[in-house]
Amino acid sequence: MSDSLLQALRGIVGDAHVLRPQDQDLSAYEQDWRRRYHGRSLAVVRPASTAEVAAVMRLAHEQGVPVVTQGGNTGLVGGSVPDASGTQILLSLQRMNRLRGVDPANLTLTAEAGMVLQLVQQAAAQAELLFPLSLAAEGSCTLGGVLATNAGGTQVLRYGNARDLCLGLEVVTADGQIWEGLSGLRKDNTGYDLRHLFVGSEGTLGVITAATMKLYPRPRARMTALAACASLQAAVDLLSLAQQHCASALTGFEVMNELSLQLVARHFPHLTQPLSGHAWTVLLELSDAENEAHARAQFEGMLEQALEQGLIDDAAIAENLTQSHAMWHLRESIPLAQAEEGLNIKHDISLPVSRIPEFVTQCDAALAQAFPGARLVNFGHLGDGNLHYNLQAPEGVSAAEFLGTHEHAVNQLVFDHVQTHGGSFSAEHGIGALKRDELAQRKSPVALQLMRAIKQALDPKGLLNPGRML
Amino acid sequence: MSDSLLQALRGIVGDAHVLRPQDQDLSAYEQDWRRRYHGRSLAVVRPASTAEVAAVMRLAHEQGVPVVTQGGNTGLVGGSVPDASGTQILLSLQRMNRLRGVDPANLTLTAEAGMVLQLVQQAAAQAELLFPLSLAAEGSCTLGGVLATNAGGTQVLRYGNARDLCLGLEVVTADGQIWEGLSGLRKDNTGYDLRHLFVGSEGTLGVITAATMKLYPRPRARMTALAACASLQAAVDLLSLAQQHCASALTGFEVMNELSLQLVARHFPHLTQPLSGHAWTVLLELSDAENEAHARAQFEGMLEQALEQGLIDDAAIAENLTQSHAMWHLRESIPLAQAEEGLNIKHDISLPVSRIPEFVTQCDAALAQAFPGARLVNFGHLGDGNLHYNLQAPEGVSAAEFLGTHEHAVNQLVFDHVQTHGGSFSAEHGIGALKRDELAQRKSPVALQLMRAIKQALDPKGLLNPGRML
Repeated sequence: MSDSLLQALRGIVGDAHVLRPQDQDLSAYEQDWRRRYHGRSLAVVRPASTAEVAAVMRLAHEQGVPVVTQGGNTGLVGGSVPDASGTQILLSLQRMNRLRGVDPANLTLTAEAGMVLQLVQQAAAQAELLFPLSLAAEGSCTLGGVLATNAGGTQVLRYGNARDLCLGLEVVTADGQIWEGLSGLRKDNTGYDLRHLFVGSEGTLGVITAATMKLYPRPRARMTALAACASLQAAVDLLSLAQQHCASALTGFEVMNELSLQLVARHFPHLTQPLSGHAWTVLLELSDAENEAHARAQFEGMLEQALEQGLIDDAAIAENLTQSHAMWHLRESIPLAQAEEGLNIKHDISLPVSRIPEFVTQCDAALAQAFPGARLVNFGHLGDGNLHYNLQAPEGVSAAEFLGTHEHAVNQLVFDHVQTHGGSFSAEHGIGALKRDELAQRKSPVALQLMRAIKQALDPKGLLNPGRML
Repeated sequence: MSDSLLQALRGIVGDAHVLRPQDQDLSAYEQDWRRRYHGRSLAVVRPASTAEVAAVMRLAHEQGVPVVTQGGNTGLVGGSVPDASGTQILLSLQRMNRLRGVDPANLTLTAEAGMVLQLVQQAAAQAELLFPLSLAAEGSCTLGGVLATNAGGTQVLRYGNARDLCLGLEVVTADGQIWEGLSGLRKDNTGYDLRHLFVGSEGTLGVITAATMKLYPRPRARMTALAACASLQAAVDLLSLAQQHCASALTGFEVMNELSLQLVARHFPHLTQPLSGHAWTVLLELSDAENEAHARAQFEGMLEQALEQGLIDDAAIAENLTQSHAMWHLRESIPLAQAEEGLNIKHDISLPVSRIPEFVTQCDAALAQAFPGARLVNFGHLGDGNLHYNLQAPEGVSAAEFLGTHEHAVNQLVFDHVQTHGGSFSAEHGIGALKRDELAQRKSPVALQLMRAIKQALDPKGLLNPGRML
């Protein structure tokens, strides 16, 4: 790095906030959360304000230096770490973590991109309101990160993805201008929707520095139930029934196949499983605007009807909050049980809900034929059509060897079936570096051409997160 | 028009579907719904399929002929009629009106752009589901039109604008390629969100030929109530209370000032007004997933609490569907009563809900000072922060003369106040030709620059709906 560039960066953000790999260990910034990507930055630059971000971006633009933007660095596709060249500025927004305001009457919150998701949730709770976006990394991921990747999580069924919660953005462009697009408006038809273009663009079109997000009234009661289904089709029918009965009070509808709960039983035997030995178990969550008694009555009425219609074989409604948490804990333990069981091949796919039973039947059969003995750990957000359709090596086979030999072929087989059924090979994790080739191969050529034209228009020098997504 | 172009267009869509202004009266296509814009087309071209649209667009692109796309031609800002030059193809999508399918388990519907909105609603109803987008022009506006303009309507509070209901699009690009982006997926993070770029772009970036839209379970009961508030702040507080109590069952929250209901009484004296003589009247609508008794209990509990807290002075809950319709009819009669009263100046503005009382106080006062005697007919979708903040000439003054003299100054005063309070000068009607200068003047220069870069990237020859929006 030229001394003058270094001096200029220090002049913008202060000496203490330009970190160089020559001087200290920067692996917290340069290595991704899953430890698949190990990069080396030109420097880690930590601005504290939008003006500082803009100054850094102007400098980078003038000098032709690539910039990789990073929030909490919890992404799963290698989208937020620099490559190995040592030529990219790692722009960390963690110091831009201020809450700019909560507007209870407008049901909005405005915060900077570096604010940790859990703190955003807490700020809403302090105003007795709900910020519904919730996911495993919420203790360290940031608002800017969840917007740049359009994160999903457990409440999508009711509240949508990160993009659906966003009303306005403040963005620094590739050449260091500030678009002041923060807005608390539910309706605004004055021009192209730039907000939705930046959301989900993974740092390749601009740097999100702040956002105005929707809040909701807090439900008065939350209640969870488990239901056992003999088939995935029955689970899909149960979803329709539950949506008819409970409308948007239905805030969770997760599905788990038998093997996924068996692995939980094997590796976490202390966890109680209210239902077991069923082909499919559904976890349902109600968020009720009235009270617990009303939520319980809703659940009972609906599950009774499901029993009568033969959609479910058994059900258990949580008696209290502890039991509710225990049910969710079962669901959340599946990835951990998988990890205990050994290396596995993960897929984050989505399909039209109506196509899921047929997809699973066909894809299961094709995998069984091509990879005899391989075990399917199939679970996920059925209500959103989003499955974590994961493959574990056959019992007794070395997982590392199985993956080494078959991972690519397994992926291709699964993604081919996903495509046949109108699905997506990346439902919520994004593209980053990991799925870039997949995107080039599977996205329609016209869509890719439109994306490249937009990239060229907004980042003509190609300096924003190069090599990611496109 | 060159003979060869005419021949080529006829070859694509058939002789009967290339209409020329020399041969017949095309004012149904060439004049906008409000009769403010009278254009002349090169020809009206009526394709029946996506392939035909693509062929027309390829031809137009090759020969450098501008194209104005039109659906039901019910827009309010002159965005869908050709200019007076006689050089623009008017591409009417009314023949592309097929329902491509309903997927009840996935809660989606796919239809072509020319399908009339009311028929889309009916197709959903036939599957015992709800397509919630509803607006005054629904008997003639089309699905493509409501998407190209991101239409709003009466259900936005619960279901969002047209863009929020859209999951996927099929689009023909400026150079006649087909982007097959139809999708029934709730989660799909594979690249930039092209869908949201085309939605609301008013035909300036591509031609929407089909869409996949979200459906919802049909509520089991709908109930309406009126409530009288002494101030707009009380109405805003009532909104918060109603949202806490009823969550997303609250599907309507409309406000009407005293003058707006007085005009209804003057011009439609046969309409019963259950409440009258109050500064502000709120219309609330509940859509209940359970039954009518539950909806009534919800309303009663909430309105009782509002009375106790002094937020409302009086309330009336509809006893039956007829009374519910009568309450909505009052609200819907305001624009008609305004028309009877005489020409007036309309504003379709939005603000953060929390800023509305202060905005109205300040803007009312400024208008009273600048235009003594002018009368404010203020009503709209308070739940969405969207006001129809309209000005009627003073009693006894010629409305035509008042508008002729003051319209521009009134607009500037109102829009200046809107801007000060973080609002939008076009909440749901869009930009078109009518508000293009306003956009150039009031949108941030960075946003305009980004918009122009995108326009240049996707329509480099500038042939799509030229002179509209940008």
